[in-house]
This record gives sequence, C-alpha cells and structure tokens, in this order.
Amino acid sequence: MTHQSRPGEFDLISSYFKPLAKNESGALGLTDDAAVLNIRNGHRLVVTMDTLVSGVHFLEFTPPHFIAAKALRVNLSDLAAMGADPAYYTLSLSLPTFGDVSYNEDWLDRFSQALGVEQSLYNIVLVGGDTVSTPGPLSLTISAFGWVKTGQEILRSGASIEDLVFVSGTVGDAMLGLAAVQGSFPDLTPSDLEIITERHHRPQPRLQLGRRLFGLANSAIDISDGLIQDLEHICTASGVTATIRATDIPLSGPGKKLIDDDPDLIKTILSGGDDYELLFTIPPEWKSSISSLAKELGLPLTQIGEIEAKRSGDSVSVYDACGNLMSIPASGYRHF
Amino acid sequence: MTHQSRPGEFDLISSYFKPLAKNESGALGLTDDAAVLNIRNGHRLVVTMDTLVSGVHFLEFTPPHFIAAKALRVNLSDLAAMGADPAYYTLSLSLPTFGDVSYNEDWLDRFSQALGVEQSLYNIVLVGGDTVSTPGPLSLTISAFGWVKTGQEILRSGASIEDLVFVSGTVGDAMLGLAAVQGSFPDLTPSDLEIITERHHRPQPRLQLGRRLFGLANSAIDISDGLIQDLEHICTASGVTATIRATDIPLSGPGKKLIDDDPDLIKTILSGGDDYELLFTIPPEWKSSISSLAKELGLPLTQIGEIEAKRSGDSVSVYDACGNLMSIPASGYRHF
Repeated sequence: MTHQSRPGEFDLISSYFKPLAKNESGALGLTDDAAVLNIRNGHRLVVTMDTLVSGVHFLEFTPPHFIAAKALRVNLSDLAAMGADPAYYTLSLSLPTFGDVSYNEDWLDRFSQALGVEQSLYNIVLVGGDTVSTPGPLSLTISAFGWVKTGQEILRSGASIEDLVFVSGTVGDAMLGLAAVQGSFPDLTPSDLEIITERHHRPQPRLQLGRRLFGLANSAIDISDGLIQDLEHICTASGVTATIRATDIPLSGPGKKLIDDDPDLIKTILSGGDDYELLFTIPPEWKSSISSLAKELGLPLTQIGEIEAKRSGDSVSVYDACGNLMSIPASGYRHF
Repeated sequence: MTHQSRPGEFDLISSYFKPLAKNESGALGLTDDAAVLNIRNGHRLVVTMDTLVSGVHFLEFTPPHFIAAKALRVNLSDLAAMGADPAYYTLSLSLPTFGDVSYNEDWLDRFSQALGVEQSLYNIVLVGGDTVSTPGPLSLTISAFGWVKTGQEILRSGASIEDLVFVSGTVGDAMLGLAAVQGSFPDLTPSDLEIITERHHRPQPRLQLGRRLFGLANSAIDISDGLIQDLEHICTASGVTATIRATDIPLSGPGKKLIDDDPDLIKTILSGGDDYELLFTIPPEWKSSISSLAKELGLPLTQIGEIEAKRSGDSVSVYDACGNLMSIPASGYRHF
C-alpha cells in the first residue's frame, strides 16, 4: 500500500480495510509494500483484474454495498469461468475527494463492511492494494487470485466441432434490471422488479459450477459482454463457429413477461452483458452428466446450441422460432 | 480481460498489449478471462498494486513513455523493498475517451512500446488486465508479482534497537526534478536539469540491492512518501524510533548546488517522496558488509542514523549540523 498524496487522510482510509485482511498473515496487516503469499503446490495461480468506473460500469449514486459486491463478483466470475478456487484479492480505490463529499467516512464504512460480507460468502481475503484521490469519478480496480489444480483450468480455446453449447441460470436479467433501475418497465410487479434489479446489482459468480466443469467442458467463459459476444470470444479462441436458437435461451419469470410484451427484446437480451452466468461447451456424450450436475447444484443448465466448423461470416448464428436467421445489433445495452 | 463498453474500440486497444504478453503462455494471449501462472516451488508470491492518476501522480501531458516507466517502476520498487524477483504484472488502463483526443493510437503505440522496453529491462511480462473508458483523467493501475524464497522476504517490521539506518543512492532528486519540470530552478545547467528530471520521470527500482539485503537487513522500505514518512512507517511497524542527521543525507551534484543556494530546501527533500531508493536498517556488525556491497553494486549506501527504543513524541527525529532538533513539515511536495 503506497500512496503519494494526503498521507494522513489515506492512512485513515486504509484503517477501514485492515479488518478485511486480519485473517491472512501474508497481507502483513496492509502496512507493508506488498503482500507475501504462500503458494499451493500442484496448482496454478489464476489472476483476474477488472476496473469499474462510476457512471460507466455502474450508475452514479449506486449504494456502496452494491458497488462492493459487483466489483468483487465480476472478478470472482472470471475465476469461476476458469474453474478456480478464490483465495485473495487486492483493491485499488480512487476516491473523488476533490470537492466531492459523497465519499465520506459513512460511505467508506458501508463499503468496507459490504466487502467483509462478500469475503465471508466467497472465502476470499483482502491482501493489499492502494488508495488514491482523483479529480475524476469514483473508480475501483480489483485483482483476484485463485488456485486451480495444474492442468485443470478451463480455457476459452478448447471448444470442438459438435460440442453442445450450454448456459447456466437465466439470461438477460442483469440488463433488464439496469433498465428497470433507470425507470423502464413501470408495469412490473414489485417482486419481479426486485428479481431483476438484484441480478443487476449482485451477480452470482458460478464458482461451484466452474469447479465441477473440469472433465466435462471443453471451453468456458462468463457472460460479461453479452451472450453472443462472449460466445464469439469462445469461437474466435477455438477456431470454430456456433449456432444457437433464440427460443432455447433460458429466461426468468420477469424476463418471460417482458418478452411476451415486446418480443424484440430478445435481441437486446442476447447481446446484453453483465449476467455473469457461465457459457460452456461440452462433447455430446456428457449431456446426461450435465443434466445430473444441474439437479445436484440446483442451477438450470440449458443447451442453447451447437459448435460447428469454421465458416465465412459471423462466428455466431442465431435462429428464431421459425428457423430464420436473426439479425442482432452489436451491443444491446445502448438500447435503453 | 473483460470490458463492458465499446468492445470494438477496446479490442483494438488490447491488440497493442498482446505483443507484451507473447513470451508467457500463462497470459493466454490476453484473450481469456484471467491469466494462469505456474508457481515457483519453495517461494512465496509477492504482490504489489499501485494506481497513478494524471494530474495527481504525474503532470498532465507527461509523455507516454515516462508514464509507462513510472507506473511499472513504482511497483518494481515495492518488489525490490521485499527482496523479490519480478515475474509478472497486470495493467488496468482507464482512458479518457469521452471527447479527449490526446489518447489516440499514436499515444497507445508509444505507451505500449515503452512498456515493452521496461519489460526487457526488468525481466517482467504482462499477463492480463483491463481497459475501460472514463469521463475522468487518464489513470493506470498496475499489479506486479514477484517471487521470494520462503522466509527470505524483508519486512518493514523487523527493525531492532541499535540498528543502523541506511539509504541507497541520493535523496531528493525526484522532488527537485518535479519542481524543475514545473519551471523552478531556471539557473541550473542543462546537464544538472537532466539529472534531476530523469530521476523524477524514471526512478530506478533497486532490485539488485533488495535481493542482496536478505541476511543483512532487519527491515526495508522504498522511499515513495518521503524519507521521513517512510522511516516512520518502519518505526511504527517495528515498535521503535529513529534518529537521523540531515548532514548525512546523500545528495546528488545538482541537489548539493540547490541546497547551497537555499539551505532550507533540505527540509523539503527530507519529506519529499518519489525517490524510490531503499531505506533499510542493519545490525551494526554488518556495516562493513554493506560497505562491500555498495562497492560491488556501484551504488552508494549511506548511513544516515540509528534505530532507538520507543519514546513519546515523533518516531523520527532529525538533527541539523549543530546538533539541534529540526522541525520538518509533514509533506514536502506542497512547497512548490
């Protein structure tokens, strides 16, 4: 933890984070230049890094507990997609202290308490980082570290022709939740609104699923950019293409209602991101194993398409209920 | 590497960084959710994280190669203070793309090329990160990873009573260099100006020295906040105090000239940061070994004081040439 400005103030700030590091001696109480971490023999270290900027990745004035949850969970989701076990994270917090009083001690207290809750939930511990002031918006960078047994990591690049394409949970809720927070869908019931806004604010990193996919999945990715874009990432890395059927996309209750009202919304959902579900491909012979795994985890795992040989044109083709090729805009979130 | 906005643009940007990751298979070509790194048996992993914000940690319109060098080197300096060997780093780049045309492809090209030069110099490789857009200023977070043999890490907390306090290189040049860039010291010769501005822009992480301090130093820290503040960090972590003599502070040629003109400048130098020299404490019996090490490395290692028992008042006392206790302002850089 080094900081080059306002040492008094930032020493104060760092005291909010010390309790989060107390169970890991390698964090050195956040008082040293760096963390010194024990390694796990027979494993590889999986490292992720994601930055969230206020007004870009979350709405301004999002409550601090939602920001804490999202910043950590988007990184945990990357670990999940690799099949890794979370272990440590570092946090760099850029606080708009130049005249902005929103990020006061109360804010820091709520933010750090929420991180503590997340840590317990996901068995991960803060080991270091930085705090700086910025004339710009609030911004956070988290780097998460996890362990995966050597050779058991699941990459984007392993998809094979004839693989089946699966997705966990339901798709589109996070984007619909964002639209709802911004005032869309005034006719939804309060409980439906809560379901989708919760999915926007607090994605569920699919860590248990990720750990179980080794030996079953040839490739995996978490949905952060959008289902189609992330499936394109798998296709590009694996040198294949994919065909999916819009009617097979798993939807939540509120998602179904909204699409019944506006069938075109499926296009937005297919290219909208932030669901942090896992998208993965398996050889056909493991289909029944995936079905058993879904029951065991209590998590829907739905086949939405197949992997095919490389061809010219888009790497992902989407077909509608009538078997017609659909045209999907490049980025869904701009539709609101 | 995930990004939730402007995927096309940021795919382009990430292509600037792919060449930096080409020699490390664990970086997965920067195309996956995370890096998967082999560990080094018998070692611990040292992890640092530092954020630099334009206008806060470096002047606006600083050329990209200086920004690249500084962002990486401040992290390397943290590894040096621990006695660790650099191995990997991740970079999150927040680019002010909202209407700011300064950070165009030419900027990215120069920035990424400079990172490549730094990588070769310090034997470290990019393995992952993030690129986002921000309505705020340019901002970078780097997390660096290094290896230290288990038990050989040097902490802030090991200083003992009667230890001698040493500092590497010369002190104050980085702060004087910043002042020079801002137009102070118009009477300095061009070569003197170059010495101090280079020290401001491109600090030298003392990695070789850090590696050699195991078995000699009881504690170490790099000077980022300021010599006095960083010595206070050692004292606080170790439960001791320190006495130093202002006349023993090692100064560069231009540093000496400027202090001859304005003797009060020594106070600014003592509390100014950014030198990234190592400050360390050794038991008295190793004094001659440090002297030999200085010769071997071609790097001045100067005794500036001693560690003493805890007492009330300031943890670091500074005495002037007449043996009088000096009063030093809390933060030097505000003086310009």
